[in-house]
Amino acid sequence: MDARVLMEENNVDAILVFSESYNSPNMYYLTSLLVPDPFLYILPYDDKPIAVVPDIEVNEAREKCKEGLKIYSIKEFIEEFGYTEKEKYLKITKKLIQNFDLRNIGVPRDFPIFFADKLKNEFMSLDQDIEITSLDLSRVREIKGSKEIKLIEKAQRCAEKGMARARDILKDSSVIENKLYYNDNLLTSEKLRIEIEIELIKNGCTSFDIIASSGRESSNPHNSGKGPMNSAPIMIDIFPQLKLGRYCGDLTRTFSKNEDSEILKRYEFVSEAQEIAFDLIKDGVKGSKVHNIVCEYFEELGFGTPRSNSKSNANFIHSTGHGIGLEIHETPKLGPGGREMKKGHVVTVEPGLYDPKVGGIRIEDVVVVNENGFKNLTEFEKKVLI
Amino acid sequence: MDARVLMEENNVDAILVFSESYNSPNMYYLTSLLVPDPFLYILPYDDKPIAVVPDIEVNEAREKCKEGLKIYSIKEFIEEFGYTEKEKYLKITKKLIQNFDLRNIGVPRDFPIFFADKLKNEFMSLDQDIEITSLDLSRVREIKGSKEIKLIEKAQRCAEKGMARARDILKDSSVIENKLYYNDNLLTSEKLRIEIEIELIKNGCTSFDIIASSGRESSNPHNSGKGPMNSAPIMIDIFPQLKLGRYCGDLTRTFSKNEDSEILKRYEFVSEAQEIAFDLIKDGVKGSKVHNIVCEYFEELGFGTPRSNSKSNANFIHSTGHGIGLEIHETPKLGPGGREMKKGHVVTVEPGLYDPKVGGIRIEDVVVVNENGFKNLTEFEKKVLI
Repeated sequence: MDARVLMEENNVDAILVFSESYNSPNMYYLTSLLVPDPFLYILPYDDKPIAVVPDIEVNEAREKCKEGLKIYSIKEFIEEFGYTEKEKYLKITKKLIQNFDLRNIGVPRDFPIFFADKLKNEFMSLDQDIEITSLDLSRVREIKGSKEIKLIEKAQRCAEKGMARARDILKDSSVIENKLYYNDNLLTSEKLRIEIEIELIKNGCTSFDIIASSGRESSNPHNSGKGPMNSAPIMIDIFPQLKLGRYCGDLTRTFSKNEDSEILKRYEFVSEAQEIAFDLIKDGVKGSKVHNIVCEYFEELGFGTPRSNSKSNANFIHSTGHGIGLEIHETPKLGPGGREMKKGHVVTVEPGLYDPKVGGIRIEDVVVVNENGFKNLTEFEKKVLI
Repeated sequence: MDARVLMEENNVDAILVFSESYNSPNMYYLTSLLVPDPFLYILPYDDKPIAVVPDIEVNEAREKCKEGLKIYSIKEFIEEFGYTEKEKYLKITKKLIQNFDLRNIGVPRDFPIFFADKLKNEFMSLDQDIEITSLDLSRVREIKGSKEIKLIEKAQRCAEKGMARARDILKDSSVIENKLYYNDNLLTSEKLRIEIEIELIKNGCTSFDIIASSGRESSNPHNSGKGPMNSAPIMIDIFPQLKLGRYCGDLTRTFSKNEDSEILKRYEFVSEAQEIAFDLIKDGVKGSKVHNIVCEYFEELGFGTPRSNSKSNANFIHSTGHGIGLEIHETPKLGPGGREMKKGHVVTVEPGLYDPKVGGIRIEDVVVVNENGFKNLTEFEKKVLI
């Protein structure tokens, strides 16, 4: 959705953001700037966007900013001493609101209440009223262009390098009494995670967390794994973010070092569930529909799902997928309430089955939706036995 | 400052936080929980604190939470389907505000405007008025206890391991036409950063960024370095965060691979400036005073400082230090407006001189303030020539 359409829908006459941009996907998306301290962005409905950055950042910002964005330094607005940086930004924002004659200002949902209250008070003391309305700015980022898709692919390639490192270590590990040994030492989740993370760093990514869980603990999708690793199932979920470029990848594979028939059977069910989702995904299909049909499939096999009341030993307990981009989890979703997919949406497809007594199985790829279906941005093999 | 003193000063009858806790030092401080999705914390002035977490997190949260904190899951409040997680939290917050009979609710400065507006509207529709007041919650985190200091020391040890790796690589590098070569390859800032970061990861830390800059580029303290490295000056600034424990370290050393007399002279000045700051730091002394005396010292030598109008080739261009804890930069500061230091404050001491034509020199340690002076939490040697 275009930013101006979002403004029209919400009846605001500008978008205002005040934030650093390493942890604010909205700010990074709007400016293409990586600035560690809060700065100011304003997009008036009928004017060009401007950003005001700390003096020390201004040269680099002018070089690297999004096309069409005009960059100012703080000192171009305020020369006086004796104000904190936040006070200066408040004064500058006030000036800009007056210059552009704004009345109803759209801000992201996580806009800091402190800044909003101070702004409102400033205008109240002038006997002028401004309205501040929070917008779901993530809507603007949903449809990805070709450059963005390339960056997601790059992050996914990086995730695959981490996965290859994990697979190779797991392959080379021996099993003694159900525990893994690598180079004659117990292989722990912690050690495996470090090896994966080193691979990500060598390839220009950071990683918020990595899941390297095994056995029963892998039945909790949020458990990243602790201590000596079991031989099956082994769940590796890698979600790196490009240090530069900031887009994310997301990749899960489940491995088994033994031929436990129950694990292998369930792996086939999960694999089939992913194929069922793949068959449905294309421009115009609702994310909720994909999720419902995946749930139906699992329910027919006797498993519980998020929408069913009956639970079995093993259950599907989360959504089928989520949007991915500058955030690891973003809209649209392949889950309850999931809207129509559009060409350029990038989503994960990640069915799973979780059994508190055995562990979890999940297979996850990242795909980009197109008119006839999708393109899988993931190249990593799917092979459970190693 | 105790949270209840902050409530009294601001005339609020509770503190409310709604946030995930990886990127919210306030939420982590109040709960000791690492939860990747937003959750709810409420501390009524005359009652015990409670937190409401996603159902999937409740068991781990009960194990790991701060002593005295009572944990609930969402489903203990709301059983109905059909609401998003955010809607559920809104309903729960409303219930809690009614149960505790709260009128004026204190929230952190970065509290999301979306949540605040929704809450106010809910109560307006009931013809009840609630006030939401933003507080500087970071004040509560300023004085560190012994456990916190141990964690900062641990992060600082980790930074030192990264620094040792950098120093060893630089030592083993040869200089050809002012450029560094390591193992017969050009040594770039990027390569050196990867080696440092691997060391941090092996030691349980992540790192927001690492500065490995050299030559002219090091004259910008925000420039993390790019391309082939020069032989002098070489500035390495490492600020890791413990993955578990979440406290940060901060360590800067400047190295030189040649005996350029101007660089060595300035290094001595910066070193002396740090000693001058050390001589002043103790409980009861203002951070602004330490900074002013460091500025005076540099000014007397003919250098420019942030408070002087005259500039020389080389200038001191930032504050003398900043608080460090769950955030890399937090209050109190050793700079303009810096308040009285108290026993248990942990601050960096990091004077520097920056010359756009030559590069930057900075030496940075982390110290904890006590009644008689301070304890330096940093052990890494200060030796410019390598």
